[in-house]
Amino acid sequence: MQYTCVEQGALEGFCQQVFRAHGLAAPDAELAARVLVNSDARGIPSHGVARLPRYVRGLKAGSILTDAKPKLIHETPLSLVLDAQGGMGTTVSQQAMDAVIAKACEHGAGFATVRDSNHFGIAAWYAMQALPHDLIGIAMTNTAALGVPTHGRQCMFGTNPIAFAAPADREKAFVLDMSTTAVTRGKLEVYGRQNTPLPTGWAAAPDGGDAHDAPSLLESMNIYAGGGLHPLGGAGTEFGGHKGYGLAVMVDILCGALAGHGFGRHLHDTPGSTGRVGHFFAAFRIDLFRPADEFRQAMDQLLSDLRTSEPAAGHDQVWYAGLKEIQAQEAASREGVPVETGVIESLQALGEACGVTLAGIKEPSHA
Amino acid sequence: MQYTCVEQGALEGFCQQVFRAHGLAAPDAELAARVLVNSDARGIPSHGVARLPRYVRGLKAGSILTDAKPKLIHETPLSLVLDAQGGMGTTVSQQAMDAVIAKACEHGAGFATVRDSNHFGIAAWYAMQALPHDLIGIAMTNTAALGVPTHGRQCMFGTNPIAFAAPADREKAFVLDMSTTAVTRGKLEVYGRQNTPLPTGWAAAPDGGDAHDAPSLLESMNIYAGGGLHPLGGAGTEFGGHKGYGLAVMVDILCGALAGHGFGRHLHDTPGSTGRVGHFFAAFRIDLFRPADEFRQAMDQLLSDLRTSEPAAGHDQVWYAGLKEIQAQEAASREGVPVETGVIESLQALGEACGVTLAGIKEPSHA
Repeated sequence: MQYTCVEQGALEGFCQQVFRAHGLAAPDAELAARVLVNSDARGIPSHGVARLPRYVRGLKAGSILTDAKPKLIHETPLSLVLDAQGGMGTTVSQQAMDAVIAKACEHGAGFATVRDSNHFGIAAWYAMQALPHDLIGIAMTNTAALGVPTHGRQCMFGTNPIAFAAPADREKAFVLDMSTTAVTRGKLEVYGRQNTPLPTGWAAAPDGGDAHDAPSLLESMNIYAGGGLHPLGGAGTEFGGHKGYGLAVMVDILCGALAGHGFGRHLHDTPGSTGRVGHFFAAFRIDLFRPADEFRQAMDQLLSDLRTSEPAAGHDQVWYAGLKEIQAQEAASREGVPVETGVIESLQALGEACGVTLAGIKEPSHA
Repeated sequence: MQYTCVEQGALEGFCQQVFRAHGLAAPDAELAARVLVNSDARGIPSHGVARLPRYVRGLKAGSILTDAKPKLIHETPLSLVLDAQGGMGTTVSQQAMDAVIAKACEHGAGFATVRDSNHFGIAAWYAMQALPHDLIGIAMTNTAALGVPTHGRQCMFGTNPIAFAAPADREKAFVLDMSTTAVTRGKLEVYGRQNTPLPTGWAAAPDGGDAHDAPSLLESMNIYAGGGLHPLGGAGTEFGGHKGYGLAVMVDILCGALAGHGFGRHLHDTPGSTGRVGHFFAAFRIDLFRPADEFRQAMDQLLSDLRTSEPAAGHDQVWYAGLKEIQAQEAASREGVPVETGVIESLQALGEACGVTLAGIKEPSHA
């Protein structure tokens, strides 16, 4: 894959102007741009600027409403419920996480649910904001139904990611951000384009058996005719697929049933963009249990134990969740954000259509 | 496998008397007996009465202390920290979950950590206690190091289970209770006794590659010479093994680093019994977000959607976490608790050695 580095501020500025050109208010546009570019910077291009055209389609089609204001439905000292009213997922989610952090700092713990929202970017963006406050941070979202239950054959839940962040001291923070399906649909699409058979354990065929032919599976999934992604742990129970299934449903319970939003098979993407979803956020104070500096020192021990443990034959080192991502983020702020060359071209086309120029492009490199 | 059903009250009474004969006070013995028998009743024999001899060895060897009293280390309106001081894991965990539920009912959320504890039975036992109070319940424990990180080859974390319980109305409650490794060590032992090669994806060999020979792997694991269980998702990242690895570390952060207990490679089982561990418990009110009856109705929809979704070819129905277990529990209360015939014999031998008789045995059946 060929990547081109783009200066981070320039890439954020470009996304911001594109969002502005499609009706978002300045603060909403700035935030959404930062969330997208941060994903690329962290080495997660699937949720980065490559999605800008999809957001723009959603804004144009009205599946994401530019003038929606998040509405406070319910509030207690520990909790709040927001209705995004169809607006940007990033705007309402930032508002929710800010409130969760304030509640946790003041009362010990904070929780928020969000309903009628749109794609919020990477879950880690929100969970990580707990870190400087010596809080544990949690963020989840449900998504359009793409996953098949253990022993099932219909899409009944989304890729439903979970993010969990805990601070350390000398070590980098532990930041887990994982979908609860074995892989995401994007992976099936890559194999489909390459006409490569899918490995057993990624996806179920329309009859619930092993899926190997990506193009026909994707066609069947698009019309909800059966088949979809296996939960984390794969098919059946032999490798723990029922555990990934359980985690995906747990996320749906918190983001759907608890949030008062839709869930499961009722969530669909629109032809051009992503469907309306619900979110769950939480944070709690570390010093509910022990002084934060003691905890961070224990985290240093725990994480450095993992990082310095002996690697398997053929590997250089053992990583922990968040370590590669923060190293990528630090490199991106120095050297620019790596973006697939094909994505650069699609951004340039998108910019031309609304009079915005992508600046800050550096020399292409192979990675 | 041949099972013999034992009348539930008689089986509990037997376990209670055996615990009493080894020095536990009456309430501690009664609770531990109920937790063990409940595991068998729910169809989870790995954590049931088959473990009674192991608890007895722990009590005899002093790795589980009969006279330890849980000590309150720290308390806030939302949280408490207990030190089990090496006593029974069930006793301190019940005390912790009772306090968590009381705090959640009064203030909206409750959290507890426990340090220097022993095996607490099944995590679901504690999480489920939130259900009648219209709370979401969570329970976790770390365990002796048996799992190998993604791209690693040393045991660096335990099977670290997560339990999550949420109530429904007409449907059975959703009760997830899952280890975060692909399988448990018990599974390797079964394959070892049968001399069956291990499937790729369950365990790493001493060099970090695929392990297929269970006896030699178990020998290496026993002396911490490399190799161990893969996290949920298997080897490497292709099937999401890095996600299971992340979840296992998350549990270790909450039960070890946050609880002020040991973690990771520092936790070892003793030759005859299990090692000291830490726990994490949490609960929060559903009506922080919406009226509990509305939530339970949404849960009915969510769970019945799953239960009535189309099964894969060769399967009769789709289940959700907790459904099979509660059906097994209801059957066990009517028909007796199924116990492996070999386990019955080991219980009888254990009883003879301390003057306790196992009553309530029904006709053997094949299952």
